[in-house]
Amino acid sequence: DPYLKVFTLNSNPKLAEEIAEHIGIDLAKCSVKRFSDGEVQVNIEESIRGCDVFIVQSTSEPANEHLMELLIMVDAAKRASANTINVVIPYYGYARQDRKARSREPITSKLVANLLETAGATRVLSMDLHATQIQGFFDIPVDQLLGVPLLSKHYEEKGLEDVVIVSPDHGGVVRARRMADRLKAPIAIIDKRRPKPNVSEVMNIVGNVEGKTAIIIDDIIDTAGTMTLAADALIEHGAKEVYACSTHPVLSGPAIERIKNSQIKELTVTNTIALPEEKKIEKIHELSVAGLMAEAIIRVHEHTSVSTLFD
Amino acid sequence: DPYLKVFTLNSNPKLAEEIAEHIGIDLAKCSVKRFSDGEVQVNIEESIRGCDVFIVQSTSEPANEHLMELLIMVDAAKRASANTINVVIPYYGYARQDRKARSREPITSKLVANLLETAGATRVLSMDLHATQIQGFFDIPVDQLLGVPLLSKHYEEKGLEDVVIVSPDHGGVVRARRMADRLKAPIAIIDKRRPKPNVSEVMNIVGNVEGKTAIIIDDIIDTAGTMTLAADALIEHGAKEVYACSTHPVLSGPAIERIKNSQIKELTVTNTIALPEEKKIEKIHELSVAGLMAEAIIRVHEHTSVSTLFD
Ligand SMILES: Nc1ncnc2c1ncn2[C@@H]1O[C@H](COP(=O)(O)O)[C@@H](O)[C@H]1O
Ligand SMILES: Nc1ncnc2c1ncn2[C@@H]1O[C@H](COP(=O)(O)O)[C@@H](O)[C@H]1O
Repeated sequence: DPYLKVFTLNSNPKLAEEIAEHIGIDLAKCSVKRFSDGEVQVNIEESIRGCDVFIVQSTSEPANEHLMELLIMVDAAKRASANTINVVIPYYGYARQDRKARSREPITSKLVANLLETAGATRVLSMDLHATQIQGFFDIPVDQLLGVPLLSKHYEEKGLEDVVIVSPDHGGVVRARRMADRLKAPIAIIDKRRPKPNVSEVMNIVGNVEGKTAIIIDDIIDTAGTMTLAADALIEHGAKEVYACSTHPVLSGPAIERIKNSQIKELTVTNTIALPEEKKIEKIHELSVAGLMAEAIIRVHEHTSVSTLFD
Repeated sequence: DPYLKVFTLNSNPKLAEEIAEHIGIDLAKCSVKRFSDGEVQVNIEESIRGCDVFIVQSTSEPANEHLMELLIMVDAAKRASANTINVVIPYYGYARQDRKARSREPITSKLVANLLETAGATRVLSMDLHATQIQGFFDIPVDQLLGVPLLSKHYEEKGLEDVVIVSPDHGGVVRARRMADRLKAPIAIIDKRRPKPNVSEVMNIVGNVEGKTAIIIDDIIDTAGTMTLAADALIEHGAKEVYACSTHPVLSGPAIERIKNSQIKELTVTNTIALPEEKKIEKIHELSVAGLMAEAIIRVHEHTSVSTLFD
């Protein structure tokens, strides 16, 4: 199909390759380099006139570099007369800055949505947006794929028994519930509370974990503090063993050390963010979202519904 | 005046300090840091409700980091109910990507203009935009200050005699003419020509430089290739000595080595781009644009004309 063009930028070329393979096409040609002073230099190297263009780029670390590459590429695609410009952002960076937590803060998540539209994006395809509200920050269609089916399948295949699905905080309960439904398991919630200011947090657990195999699920694992403390609390409360999973492996700062030294048996993540070699430790197991992304791209291109991908 | 707030971000804090000093105020308080994963974290630390806000930030190297800081700060200022948001961009990065030089290239300079407006900027104050057309990329007012008066004054004070002002290429002749008028000197032009493809360029000189003190002027000095080759050509054609000046010291890649080894006696630049210690070599002389910027800010705040600053 000469009217379907999938491009990759520099954040996630391996995932983009895999996506193209699943679709059964080659990646379209473009060069994304740097001028001597570090400014981004983009050139699209084949005609895209009238095409549905898909640009694969997570706005993962370094978020500003990856976002600017994406904006500049969208600008180039617009000026090259693309029919539609679909930004495929497996990991949407700046998602956590989605509200004013204090006075005079930015809402960067909304800003980024505006920037993408201003550049010329006509549709967004993303995965596990940190807050579902982010869809509403856009005035263009947003398809949000979910990590739960993929992650659940992994644990099904492992054949774990007597499982409890754990949300590491109150914000993640819906996600835990969804996984629990698939695995026909109960849920539990880590209930952090600070009894008084300047007194350390107490980790309570709502639900029964005694003697069970606990699976903690979260959307983003960043410094891994939440996950590893949750694992400790679960073991302390009698859990037999602790698995953890997360769609987006941000893994910044002390994350890898913490995971290595933690009571987590295995951390399962996806390739929405490319792991550099030094983060590929034995405990981390990576699943690919390429098949899911490829299917979504085909459906968008063929104007069929993406929502059934969630079943 | 409680309704005038000048903020600095991370690209040029020293210049911003100087500007505030010239105005006779303190810089307004904000914190611009990074989260653990490198995402920009901005918090404005004093009320700016109803104020004229000026944000000083060059989009110099690393251009993407500095631009994103600026966009996020503008977003925060907008949400904090600023009256006007004036972005003071002494050096406007991405200025050279101002047209499609080849098919399917972006016009990043225009994209950046759109991004700034989308974030909420209401006015731009910049200096020596690489192409005057960039003013037209904005739908908000743009004040462009010029480096020529400042640079000319430096050479006047030096008391150089029998001077010729040299444009290093055809694009810079207007600028050279302007300096020549101030210094009551003739001009010359380096006339690069490639006789045939794959044959090296010939450096011709239009105008008389024999026995004269040549001053080369350009807006941006990046890798310094143009400047140092121009200096060689001038000496070869009989110039007595060669000075060079440029408003924006990008100085990337081999620039510093080239300048050290060149026939340029002194390179005069301004502080629109902050020079890191390793670039502060003896041959480079830095002038401050703080006074000019401060005057422009006061005039914008007081609704008087900025254009007379050019005299
Ligand atoms: N990149 C980031 N890293 C860590 N914290 C962040 C980041 N971006 C935003 N935040 C903060 O995380 C909080 C939102 O996280 P959450 O409560 O999980 O939605 C807000 O207080 C933000 O200031
Ligand atoms: N950051 C940069 N460094 C070097 N060259 C650039 C940069 N940005 C754009 N260009 C190129 O510089 C040319 C424009 O420069 P000029 O002819 O001096 O206006 C175009 O061909 C651009 O592709």
